[in-house]
Amino acid sequence: MTARTVTSLTNPTVKFVRALHMRKSRQESGLFLVEGLKSVTEAVELGHPPKILLHGEAAGAHPLLQRAAAVAEETLEVSPAILEKISRRDNPQTVLGVFAQAFTDIADLNAAAARCWIALECVRDPGNLGTIIRTADAAGCGAVILIGDCCDPYSVEAVRATMGSVFAVPMVKATPEAFLAWRAGWPGSVIGTLLTATTDFRAGPYRDPSLILMGNEQAGLTPALAAACDVSVKIPMRGRADSLNLAVAAGVMIYAATS
Amino acid sequence: MTARTVTSLTNPTVKFVRALHMRKSRQESGLFLVEGLKSVTEAVELGHPPKILLHGEAAGAHPLLQRAAAVAEETLEVSPAILEKISRRDNPQTVLGVFAQAFTDIADLNAAAARCWIALECVRDPGNLGTIIRTADAAGCGAVILIGDCCDPYSVEAVRATMGSVFAVPMVKATPEAFLAWRAGWPGSVIGTLLTATTDFRAGPYRDPSLILMGNEQAGLTPALAAACDVSVKIPMRGRADSLNLAVAAGVMIYAATS
Repeated sequence: MTARTVTSLTNPTVKFVRALHMRKSRQESGLFLVEGLKSVTEAVELGHPPKILLHGEAAGAHPLLQRAAAVAEETLEVSPAILEKISRRDNPQTVLGVFAQAFTDIADLNAAAARCWIALECVRDPGNLGTIIRTADAAGCGAVILIGDCCDPYSVEAVRATMGSVFAVPMVKATPEAFLAWRAGWPGSVIGTLLTATTDFRAGPYRDPSLILMGNEQAGLTPALAAACDVSVKIPMRGRADSLNLAVAAGVMIYAATS
Repeated sequence: MTARTVTSLTNPTVKFVRALHMRKSRQESGLFLVEGLKSVTEAVELGHPPKILLHGEAAGAHPLLQRAAAVAEETLEVSPAILEKISRRDNPQTVLGVFAQAFTDIADLNAAAARCWIALECVRDPGNLGTIIRTADAAGCGAVILIGDCCDPYSVEAVRATMGSVFAVPMVKATPEAFLAWRAGWPGSVIGTLLTATTDFRAGPYRDPSLILMGNEQAGLTPALAAACDVSVKIPMRGRADSLNLAVAAGVMIYAATS
């Protein structure tokens, strides 16, 4: 642990960490930012040592922080102003960690490892994506598969919404072509959610392992991916709203497929 | 329709509308801000005329905008810069409406009007609250009841997350005491979601009308409200995450109670 208090925004490590808000910096470095002692500790417990650990003065004495610092490559004590600048929020978390991204190759997934899996096509909102990763973790899903042009699960906003689950669920990126080729060998149901479907989402039982396929917030699934589903279902809309929030719809589907 | 193009941030109407980001201004005026032609049109169709309607130049010719303007008390064409300042975002919606808040009195609710109702205690996040209002609308819930010190359903963030459903679902504010007194006459199941419960949320059937009771994001239900439930259930946590996002949990519960 090499602690030195940093108060300057021109410190190169601080500049580097702040840049992780930008997708380009995350892609070039292969790193991402995690906020909060709980999530940092979760990462360490799952075998992900921090590349960089930043903390406020008061947090330095916390046993969990010291455990994280023991495996971190670099540890910096920083001023409250630096924490605010990096987090871009008032009252920021007092512990921040920088970790290596870890996407899983689609070929390495084992369909027998879980009852339910979820694939998202062109999901756009990082809060939705992070929330779906959290739900996938809670429900014991095998992976979250990101098809096509999705938002970045390693953005600060997405990671914040995962509440630490970003380390607990395998994440996969695939082109539509790669997904469709892989899906051809899927042993269970492939369930698409479509507003135009006529089958109620409760009309299962689905054949395990279930693979739930959901489309973009505005446009839904593209025809190519909708055609790849064994069964198309809808969640009933009984009021004036014509759709659910994507993360809510994913939660309803995931728990329907695993209950 | 009294159209006059406004480009100045010192225009009193623009200043008034911008202030609606603040809870104090909303409470004093009893008004709130709605973004987007779709939501404004939804409001007009449900019988809520805009107090103030603001729009960009290009939107002025849209038939739906003209229909809204026909019933608005005041209509202003404003510059793109003004729209950005009011919305506090880049690429803002080009139509904004100011409407009267409309809380329903808890004594006026008719339990026979819907199969499912939802009550939230001390919900904190406006995005969660808005998303739950959207789900309640989609699922045909009778009302969203806000117990105790909740965030404001009429904040810009909450209204944005409702996607127009803020006008479609009755909203009620109640003290814990008023809620408990009213709950004593409830004819159906009162279902609490508790992480410590041992009954699975699917173990119903619940007796209609279902009243789902959910607590604060961090602390859950207070003991007084947990004790008011007929049945306490939990959504199973199978991974490392120890809870779901509140809006996701509400969606899972609402669709379980209405399926």
